[in-house]
Amino acid sequence: MEDIFQGYKGMALETLKKYHVRVWGKTHIVTTRGEFDGTILPRAENDDDQHIVLKIITGYNIGVDIITITDMKETGYKKANYKIPEKEFPFTEGLPAVKLFGTGGTIASRLDYRTGAVIPAFSPGELYGAVPELADICNLTTEKVFAVFSENMGPPQYLQLAKAIGKEIENGVDGIVIGHGTDTMHHTGAALTFMVQNSPVPIVIVGSQRSSDRPSSDAALNLMHAMYAAGNSDIAEVMVCMFGPTSDEYGFLHRGTRVRKMHSSYRSTFRTLGDTPLATVTRKGVKAIKKQYNHRRKDRNVKILPYFEEKVTILYYYPNMQPDIIDALVDCGYKGIIIAGTGLGHVNKPVYPAIKRAIEKGVNIFMTVQTLWGYTHMFVYDTGRDLLSMGVIPLDNMLPEAAYIKLGWTLGQTTNREEVIDLMQHSINDEITKREPYNGYLLYQGGVPEVEQFVKNFRK
Amino acid sequence: MEDIFQGYKGMALETLKKYHVRVWGKTHIVTTRGEFDGTILPRAENDDDQHIVLKIITGYNIGVDIITITDMKETGYKKANYKIPEKEFPFTEGLPAVKLFGTGGTIASRLDYRTGAVIPAFSPGELYGAVPELADICNLTTEKVFAVFSENMGPPQYLQLAKAIGKEIENGVDGIVIGHGTDTMHHTGAALTFMVQNSPVPIVIVGSQRSSDRPSSDAALNLMHAMYAAGNSDIAEVMVCMFGPTSDEYGFLHRGTRVRKMHSSYRSTFRTLGDTPLATVTRKGVKAIKKQYNHRRKDRNVKILPYFEEKVTILYYYPNMQPDIIDALVDCGYKGIIIAGTGLGHVNKPVYPAIKRAIEKGVNIFMTVQTLWGYTHMFVYDTGRDLLSMGVIPLDNMLPEAAYIKLGWTLGQTTNREEVIDLMQHSINDEITKREPYNGYLLYQGGVPEVEQFVKNFRK
Repeated sequence: MEDIFQGYKGMALETLKKYHVRVWGKTHIVTTRGEFDGTILPRAENDDDQHIVLKIITGYNIGVDIITITDMKETGYKKANYKIPEKEFPFTEGLPAVKLFGTGGTIASRLDYRTGAVIPAFSPGELYGAVPELADICNLTTEKVFAVFSENMGPPQYLQLAKAIGKEIENGVDGIVIGHGTDTMHHTGAALTFMVQNSPVPIVIVGSQRSSDRPSSDAALNLMHAMYAAGNSDIAEVMVCMFGPTSDEYGFLHRGTRVRKMHSSYRSTFRTLGDTPLATVTRKGVKAIKKQYNHRRKDRNVKILPYFEEKVTILYYYPNMQPDIIDALVDCGYKGIIIAGTGLGHVNKPVYPAIKRAIEKGVNIFMTVQTLWGYTHMFVYDTGRDLLSMGVIPLDNMLPEAAYIKLGWTLGQTTNREEVIDLMQHSINDEITKREPYNGYLLYQGGVPEVEQFVKNFRK
Repeated sequence: MEDIFQGYKGMALETLKKYHVRVWGKTHIVTTRGEFDGTILPRAENDDDQHIVLKIITGYNIGVDIITITDMKETGYKKANYKIPEKEFPFTEGLPAVKLFGTGGTIASRLDYRTGAVIPAFSPGELYGAVPELADICNLTTEKVFAVFSENMGPPQYLQLAKAIGKEIENGVDGIVIGHGTDTMHHTGAALTFMVQNSPVPIVIVGSQRSSDRPSSDAALNLMHAMYAAGNSDIAEVMVCMFGPTSDEYGFLHRGTRVRKMHSSYRSTFRTLGDTPLATVTRKGVKAIKKQYNHRRKDRNVKILPYFEEKVTILYYYPNMQPDIIDALVDCGYKGIIIAGTGLGHVNKPVYPAIKRAIEKGVNIFMTVQTLWGYTHMFVYDTGRDLLSMGVIPLDNMLPEAAYIKLGWTLGQTTNREEVIDLMQHSINDEITKREPYNGYLLYQGGVPEVEQFVKNFRK
């Protein structure tokens, strides 16, 4: 006999029984806080017995507190089928050869029956079944490199991906797409920029903010854009390809080092900070915005630099930060610390002695700004000067996340302080952007066109 | 005899001597990286001997690496005088009584001769001397509560300010302005929102991004806006008053809980995130944007809640975060941790056991999002559900900085877990904004007007 209250227990189960409502029942719920329509979803093993989970018309799941429920009525019943039809991907003479690496994540996903949650899925035929337009863009082959949620990605995955990319480029592919969850997509973008240098072909990281079981999903569009960019674009760099404006007109290609996730749920969440995106992309073309980039080449020479020191961390400054935190990091054996300081790159006086001790013990401490936009500028105030004199090294406008990844990558190669500083301050692909004519100087000022643009674009 | 090379030593001193250039000399410098014009500034005691510091025409200081210098020529000489003329502030019958609290910071500052750096200054007559228009706006009295750089502000200063505000309201003032450095202005905005509740008068925090010795300074304009808002506005809340658009048309009044510094050097750096600012302000009027706010009243009843537990921290998640960091925080006696998670509020699996141990030991762990825009939504993925089941509490769209301040304030009052959670999740003044009609539900979705607006306003 089928379990019609799958996963529900205790008071939540009693509530369903009381109103004769089943899991997968289309249901109207009246509560003291409003009325809702949707489908009752199964619940997870660990879930509480205080909520009923409803998949509403937008595709979102909400948890309705049972103590607010005054009435429920089942108006229909449809057991969800999230299986995607599978078809063989056709080969078309003349189209570019694109390799899709699967890593897990929302780019192709389905509802997990056991938990009612969205879980990642990946298969070549499924992709074609779901997005047949892909066959007009490229000849696709796929490979599941591993399957982890984006938040569980880390150095072992970066190294594995870098090596897989190197091998694929050697094999003569025209472009590479990496399906990736969105949480830490920008971290992977930075990691692959440092680990895969001088690529002859585009390397495009793509994901979706809304899974393919939801009506407003960006999965198909992002995937088509990424495939097109990988197969046809002249830009042979590590890029993040995600949703552009809400109008759906185009997607953006972002440099892996300058992109950041800036909204937890919105589709247009990935933004290039402190610069313009690299290019726009549609299903029919890539239009470069930046003038300078690494061009596609015929040769197969690529530098794979798969290094990462794991004892690196980000210290996000807040008022009243105490020295015990820095001391503890040193005691735990951390070898590199990225501080995301306030203002132009500051922390409070009480942590000075701990910073000094850490640096004396050989810990490499670098400064970024938690404002995310703008540059460190540590010569302006006493605080910045004091930190500089202790040996804290400014990273200009490198994003804290890119700096963390770069420091792990750098310390994986050398522990020589001068080499570390040199590698960190030498920009590999715009993780630091410098403005003419002050290239090389410790000056980054307002009033230049880029900053003016920032304000125009950054209202709210 | 005057020291004409003040602070310079070693190779930098030799370079000045070689080209016959003095400190305060207007100088043309030719380098391998470009040419510069400006005034040679004195150097600080701790500074290296590798750079010559030049104050260029924009008001910024740059450090010129001496090894790049091919020629220097002194074209003039003018010793800077940063002293502001002091005049007695006039009393005008009928104008509102505004109290300005000085805390240090860039709102009024001058160049420090010893170090060549900008340091804060504060005196009532100086303010009038510098900005005589203030006399048309209000009757001003001032009080230096303390003098610390913004990055050194913390709980002792918050408590002192809250009490000083309470006393001043009792004394019958019409509005309060707090001069504040910009680095942690938003932290103080949050702290005072929680510590000073139900104020009958406006409490306006103001600063400047460019000090008053620079031509593009926003100090005077921000100060006039703040004085006007404090003396005349109907909005009796804790607000941050800073520069609006580059056109200078108006300033913004931001809620203390929703504002964040978003550019390290730009004047239009303070932004209300996930909402519109509270109001615009000019020298002649305040125009509310938000419909709901606390109105000015005649009575003098204000709640001063000066509490803060100092063992609270922010943990900014990054890929490969390791459990030793959380264990170390517990061992150091931390009682509260704000996680700034990825995506909808996630961390990686390896830290689960440490989080579990911490919560079992009574540490209060709350989740915010490092995307800054958007909401935690921990029911969507396994990861979020797992963290919820361990006892990590989501804080919706509370900014990590506001959450840190609120947790310190909350734990200063109670250590009872239920009370802590209740206080944290109950929004005092929009640190959590909820959308109708889902008030109270675990649902925050894209596609609503506010989020659409976000994209329009957040290009780049």
